[in-house]
Amino acid sequence: MELITLAHGSGGKSSHQLIEGLFYKYFRNDILEQRNDASVLPEILGRIAVSTDSFVIHPVFFPGGDIGKLSVYGTVNDLAMSGAKPLYITAAFIIEEGFPLKDLEKIVASMSEAAKAAEVKIIAGDTKVVEAGSADQIYINTTGIGILPKDMNIGGQNAKGGDKILVSGTLGDHGTAIMALRKGFEFVTDLESDCGLLSGMIQEILQAGADIKVLRDPTRGGLAATLNEISQQSKVGMLLEEGAIPVKQAVRSLCEILGLDPLYIANEGKLLVIAAEEDAERVLAVMKNHPLGKDAAMIGTVMDSPKGQVYLKTEIGGTRILHMPAGELLPRIC
Amino acid sequence: MELITLAHGSGGKSSHQLIEGLFYKYFRNDILEQRNDASVLPEILGRIAVSTDSFVIHPVFFPGGDIGKLSVYGTVNDLAMSGAKPLYITAAFIIEEGFPLKDLEKIVASMSEAAKAAEVKIIAGDTKVVEAGSADQIYINTTGIGILPKDMNIGGQNAKGGDKILVSGTLGDHGTAIMALRKGFEFVTDLESDCGLLSGMIQEILQAGADIKVLRDPTRGGLAATLNEISQQSKVGMLLEEGAIPVKQAVRSLCEILGLDPLYIANEGKLLVIAAEEDAERVLAVMKNHPLGKDAAMIGTVMDSPKGQVYLKTEIGGTRILHMPAGELLPRIC
Repeated sequence: MELITLAHGSGGKSSHQLIEGLFYKYFRNDILEQRNDASVLPEILGRIAVSTDSFVIHPVFFPGGDIGKLSVYGTVNDLAMSGAKPLYITAAFIIEEGFPLKDLEKIVASMSEAAKAAEVKIIAGDTKVVEAGSADQIYINTTGIGILPKDMNIGGQNAKGGDKILVSGTLGDHGTAIMALRKGFEFVTDLESDCGLLSGMIQEILQAGADIKVLRDPTRGGLAATLNEISQQSKVGMLLEEGAIPVKQAVRSLCEILGLDPLYIANEGKLLVIAAEEDAERVLAVMKNHPLGKDAAMIGTVMDSPKGQVYLKTEIGGTRILHMPAGELLPRIC
Repeated sequence: MELITLAHGSGGKSSHQLIEGLFYKYFRNDILEQRNDASVLPEILGRIAVSTDSFVIHPVFFPGGDIGKLSVYGTVNDLAMSGAKPLYITAAFIIEEGFPLKDLEKIVASMSEAAKAAEVKIIAGDTKVVEAGSADQIYINTTGIGILPKDMNIGGQNAKGGDKILVSGTLGDHGTAIMALRKGFEFVTDLESDCGLLSGMIQEILQAGADIKVLRDPTRGGLAATLNEISQQSKVGMLLEEGAIPVKQAVRSLCEILGLDPLYIANEGKLLVIAAEEDAERVLAVMKNHPLGKDAAMIGTVMDSPKGQVYLKTEIGGTRILHMPAGELLPRIC
């Protein structure tokens, strides 16, 4: 089995062979073909959206995806959350010496497929190899560039009292799938990462002409962290209906066994939307009509006060604060 | 001493404290203040240059610089090599659990200072923390965005027979400084990384109105790797005069002790220029006039053939091929 060596990161012959034989094989496009220190893009006629993310997920292959697919969709999704159309991404690899070349090829092929699905070009790259023990297999940074339509103003600062809060499907799928895999809980079937591309659903929502205030994908820290962030940015309160929040039975069961709350668990293919009250039903219908949105639900309401607080009305009728998570439930979840 | 914990990468409270207390403290600007998944930039009126690089240098602090300064200048330099004016960079951190917070602060302060010197805004970021043993202290990815002036066409494919090859100063400084530090060769004084910002010198060269074909910074693999790459891209040969290539005495001595060749050793603040023959003396004068170019020299000539080969005329009168480096002399040099 061929393994990655330090020479593959040297900038010399082995680096060139890796670049030609693997990265160009899967990523080839006119811009990458320039082969210079910087890649030159045509002018982008409008404001530009930029997002960067490093992916350190462990393990690198998991039910529903792999670090390659995640690294493309993760950054493309972040761009799409601004209302931008994603155009380009860069890909920078930090690889541990001894990583199997065939696993790298699977990851690169997966990135290529994800980039095609997302209609983005991979326009620049970098490869570093570190000694065995100085990384855990492979880490990937992607930085994305998109174009923002004129007058688009979507962001965490825009929520107002009365707005409705919607999610595109079940929560906690990604984090619980990774955790079950790490802990060897093979008995829990029906657990799969939701690692997916959200830009398509967002385009449909935007084309519906609804008044969209905020778009977010609740990744690290789950729904709880995302809503706490938004409530602070917008200086509003939020009230969620626990009974309305979709969670798969398998996720709920695993969380019960482990004493976790699905609302704090990472998602990698779920969309959170905050929309004006009068448009919320229409947005929900668009989401439900999309293949990734069949379990979409309206889960709560934005309130003028208390500012910066998220409340959960429980199924048994009580109300509790959904705090910003303090520690780390699941390191290296993305 | 306060240490980085997994919670700092969780997306929850500790992450927010790190972002507010450290990253915003040093990097704050109007774009970063948007605090959304993607940052929105104003329209860039022209073609766009993009470059990405991950920095994994060991050790993270070294004579002449640190991983923070290197991560900003490295990417800004790559942008400048296309003739672009660097505008923005992103910064994504992978930090090992247990890394001292005060060292992170030194690195972040150094990045902030470098970004100011380079006149670029840090517009987006990401922080991941991995378990102790899953990284070696800290890795940083930066991705840069610049604007390319109209009609600018500089790149590795443009060298032609007769063009002159120039370097901005002594070669091998960065790699030998790192090596001496790693091996504990404190007796070798006068070794310091050349980690530096090249965009200023490049602007002066471009303003001189000379016919510039190629700009490159000979980093990993040194001058040998860079010239071999260009000779392949441009399908030309090259002939270098060994006696004309500036190398510091301390670098030469350390290389002799270790059996290394300074032409294969990484630089982090040296500029390689290929210019039309008739403009070469003028370009050299501009370089020598710049604070970073006092040791600038004309070191060789581009030949129509043999294509893809770089020759070195040695000081004793022989000629040898300067091959593309095959293996890895110095892992984690950048």
